[in-house]
Amino acid sequence: MGSIVLGDNRYGKAEIRLLRVVRGAEAHDIRDLTVSVALAGDFDRVHLEGDNSAVLPTDSQKNAVYAIAAEAPPGAIEDLGLRLARHFLAASPAARRATVRVDEHAWTRLDAHAFHAGAGGERRQTCVVAEADAAWVSAGLADLLVLKTAGSEFRGFARDRHTTLEETGDRILATAVTARWRYADAERGDWTAAFEQARQAMLDTFARRYSRSLQQTLYEMGRAVLEALPGVAEIRLGLPNRHHFPMGSADVLHIDDRPYGLIEGTVRREGAPPGPPLDW
Amino acid sequence: MGSIVLGDNRYGKAEIRLLRVVRGAEAHDIRDLTVSVALAGDFDRVHLEGDNSAVLPTDSQKNAVYAIAAEAPPGAIEDLGLRLARHFLAASPAARRATVRVDEHAWTRLDAHAFHAGAGGERRQTCVVAEADAAWVSAGLADLLVLKTAGSEFRGFARDRHTTLEETGDRILATAVTARWRYADAERGDWTAAFEQARQAMLDTFARRYSRSLQQTLYEMGRAVLEALPGVAEIRLGLPNRHHFPMGSADVLHIDDRPYGLIEGTVRREGAPPGPPLDW
Amino acid sequence: MGSIVLGDNRYGKAEIRLLRVVRGAEAHDIRDLTVSVALAGDFDRVHLEGDNSAVLPTDSQKNAVYAIAAEAPPGAIEDLGLRLARHFLAASPAARRATVRVDEHAWTRLDAHAFHAGAGGERRQTCVVAEADAAWVSAGLADLLVLKTAGSEFRGFARDRHTTLEETGDRILATAVTARWRYADAERGDWTAAFEQARQAMLDTFARRYSRSLQQTLYEMGRAVLEALPGVAEIRLGLPNRHHFPMGSADVLHIDDRPYGLIEGTVRREGAPPGPPLDW
Amino acid sequence: MGSIVLGDNRYGKAEIRLLRVVRGAEAHDIRDLTVSVALAGDFDRVHLEGDNSAVLPTDSQKNAVYAIAAEAPPGAIEDLGLRLARHFLAASPAARRATVRVDEHAWTRLDAHAFHAGAGGERRQTCVVAEADAAWVSAGLADLLVLKTAGSEFRGFARDRHTTLEETGDRILATAVTARWRYADAERGDWTAAFEQARQAMLDTFARRYSRSLQQTLYEMGRAVLEALPGVAEIRLGLPNRHHFPMGSADVLHIDDRPYGLIEGTVRREGAPPGPPLDW
Repeated sequence: MGSIVLGDNRYGKAEIRLLRVVRGAEAHDIRDLTVSVALAGDFDRVHLEGDNSAVLPTDSQKNAVYAIAAEAPPGAIEDLGLRLARHFLAASPAARRATVRVDEHAWTRLDAHAFHAGAGGERRQTCVVAEADAAWVSAGLADLLVLKTAGSEFRGFARDRHTTLEETGDRILATAVTARWRYADAERGDWTAAFEQARQAMLDTFARRYSRSLQQTLYEMGRAVLEALPGVAEIRLGLPNRHHFPMGSADVLHIDDRPYGLIEGTVRREGAPPGPPLDW
Repeated sequence: MGSIVLGDNRYGKAEIRLLRVVRGAEAHDIRDLTVSVALAGDFDRVHLEGDNSAVLPTDSQKNAVYAIAAEAPPGAIEDLGLRLARHFLAASPAARRATVRVDEHAWTRLDAHAFHAGAGGERRQTCVVAEADAAWVSAGLADLLVLKTAGSEFRGFARDRHTTLEETGDRILATAVTARWRYADAERGDWTAAFEQARQAMLDTFARRYSRSLQQTLYEMGRAVLEALPGVAEIRLGLPNRHHFPMGSADVLHIDDRPYGLIEGTVRREGAPPGPPLDW
Repeated sequence: MGSIVLGDNRYGKAEIRLLRVVRGAEAHDIRDLTVSVALAGDFDRVHLEGDNSAVLPTDSQKNAVYAIAAEAPPGAIEDLGLRLARHFLAASPAARRATVRVDEHAWTRLDAHAFHAGAGGERRQTCVVAEADAAWVSAGLADLLVLKTAGSEFRGFARDRHTTLEETGDRILATAVTARWRYADAERGDWTAAFEQARQAMLDTFARRYSRSLQQTLYEMGRAVLEALPGVAEIRLGLPNRHHFPMGSADVLHIDDRPYGLIEGTVRREGAPPGPPLDW
Repeated sequence: MGSIVLGDNRYGKAEIRLLRVVRGAEAHDIRDLTVSVALAGDFDRVHLEGDNSAVLPTDSQKNAVYAIAAEAPPGAIEDLGLRLARHFLAASPAARRATVRVDEHAWTRLDAHAFHAGAGGERRQTCVVAEADAAWVSAGLADLLVLKTAGSEFRGFARDRHTTLEETGDRILATAVTARWRYADAERGDWTAAFEQARQAMLDTFARRYSRSLQQTLYEMGRAVLEALPGVAEIRLGLPNRHHFPMGSADVLHIDDRPYGLIEGTVRREGAPPGPPLDW
């Protein structure tokens, strides 16, 4: 039996909640962001000896996030993520890899200086990973609820002695989409246009394509994003099956909380350069 | 010291999750509802003796909700609430009062048979209370987030030895509106139009009126609803102050989770007939 | 139609999260508290005119909570609540009524200076209401989960055309107890001993008494508290029925999230002096 | 640019809530479990063509979980996980890998047939991965809150221009431990004794060892588990730093929700056989 050693590790500041106001002459804009930072690198001595000399405090990371957000309007969250990740690589000599995740919560304009939004809900996301000579940008969204009342069946499945489910040629299909895709090139231009295209491709595919299973829908949604955006190397999707059980009528259904069907998968472009996992 | 007696009590089924599909020739509509039922009346014997003979099971109440939702398209949640409340009064001879609460979660159309929504978020609500010869309808909403970046100050406040807050002539004002208003007449017509008017009146007031305090904003929002809707007897509002603390720049703010300012109040029409509390 | 007027209102600071360390020579103690404050009184002018001169900022209230917690070990949460409520009455001349709620989250000792706890979970609670010449103290608990596998039936209930539930002579009974009781006298002695007695009376009653319905169990739990504690004027209980559905075997059950049975009731001592509602 | 292909994928049923009653002559035992299943293997055709013939419905998986739980008392969650994972490999010919996660929520005995628990809170966990000729067992826990009021400092850290944090020789250290460790051998004996030893080793280390940083504490907690349990190959720990800010007094602290310090790391035994990631 071998000796005990330190394995992978990282540290940082998570869930920094930040509102950025951009004051124009005519109107203000707001950006509601949640930023998380994680650094990995030569941090053995703090773990093994409690020597903090290489450790840039997470409090300093928090301060830096607010300060850098103040320097200029944040731009797309992908650009902000790149700026922050590169800052942290420079600020922490011990860090070999800086990872920055940004979630954006959308608000709708009421007038020049007022906004409204539903609590919680769909979030646009990015995760930027930067090393000394490389960077990777992923983008995505979480908790986009979609539901269709036609164009979905589930038939011809395998059966075992525990199978009681009946085949259905017409079922409610409902899910909360989580998607994260990685761009092949971290230096591309219009992140926001790309995000909107990807989101629209997923919505269109969900709405228009006939579904024989959520797995098929997942693959088609992923493929649609890769077809729409040549710069995307791979996409990971989670489409939990939110079960709706008919209650005596096909038109009245119980919306069940748990359990739910777990449907996860990746669609990728062959030969695309690899990158860090799409899991944060 | 007096003897021990049973006081107020009620029972029912809470949070029945229900999707209602209304299938038109061209397109489908969906309604995503959460229904809760509570009955009060002559239920002493079940409490004191465990005699269930007057107790209509909550399971039957759940079945009834699904069955009644199947009979016809639900209409406005206020109408559905009235229908359900009157059903339960009739179905349970021991019940003197039936209370039905319905929350509606909005979805946006993608195409004829597909829809999307952010998870969680704003909800339209109603609470209907029915007795043998009377009924009350309240309507409202929960978790409508609003924020303004101009037109808000907080000055001239009282001070004590614990006061360190500085006056501000320009602060971010952010809140999650909860509102519940009661209609003077439970038989009026277009609940949905009234709801939209009330919601719009609140949004307009929040956006356009200068705020010297959240209490003032609360009162003005309430008054705006009563002015827009002569049929509203009173409105109860909760406007928690979601604190945003500037971080070195007036344009970069920390969004704090807790504590928050608690701001609650009622605006009412003098002489309006009283009704049950607006607290469920 | 009458004029529009301001109705009931209150304001304060909610969910002040506070850890109090009490350092003894041999060991430390900790108290993990969540404090909320609400003031009501002569606050018309801030609502109607935006005149803040009577408004002690909620920020000052927060500061005061921390400062008063520093002055001395907090003692029972009821004592802390009384101290805080009386402080706020004095600090805010416009306040006619100060309400203070304190939730306590329990920790278990690991050694002289270390502690552990499960996240979330059961909370001891108090709500103190103070006016110039009166005070009321209520105590309670939230989210105490209890479950019994024997000694529970549900039979002989009313039936209607929606009833499909079968009678059962042996069902799992599970609930998350919320209880709030009011002491007749706000000046009594050992709040913590009283709390423990009330909690134990509820647990013993749930465990030992045969249950013909949750309503019966609710009444018996409430009565047990009033019998154990002559100083309690009334108790309000919420015992949501957490449904467990047998899955082919009486010993394997699906634990359902929603809907749940809503069971609420009050047990009171006849002739006890009235007090504010037990709803915060 | 290459063609678009399906990457990693899996499907199953998540969060099956299950109560298992074990009825002894003298007393009952209960087990409160949440089971999730995921299958991976030859599922290309369902993704690419919507051909469900290889897909064992997640509804059948749910039924199987309840049925297998009924066959015999579940034993340790690790044993149940192994039984279920092997069942699903056999039941689904297309599956090459079955992953089963089980969370256990603890209850405390009130008497022979009654139990209580705080809602939410700490959970014991396992994740079993089975393939045709191999299996891996990991165990762990989530949301174990620990806090110490002495024996913790944070000094000598790196500084940059955003650093404002002061060094402290005496700080509150508080975290919510998430731990997952993998056993080198999936066939070992007493999982529950091993779990208790690992948990106790973590608690003892947290309480007794002086902390110069949470990273050092993380490493020492991981090492303590590996020293206590020779059969453990590696352990992954997450120790989010729950910040407590002194409020004018060292003994009165604000418990902050967000942001929190992210501290994650792995401690492993050199030369131990590799296994699947410890991330579900």
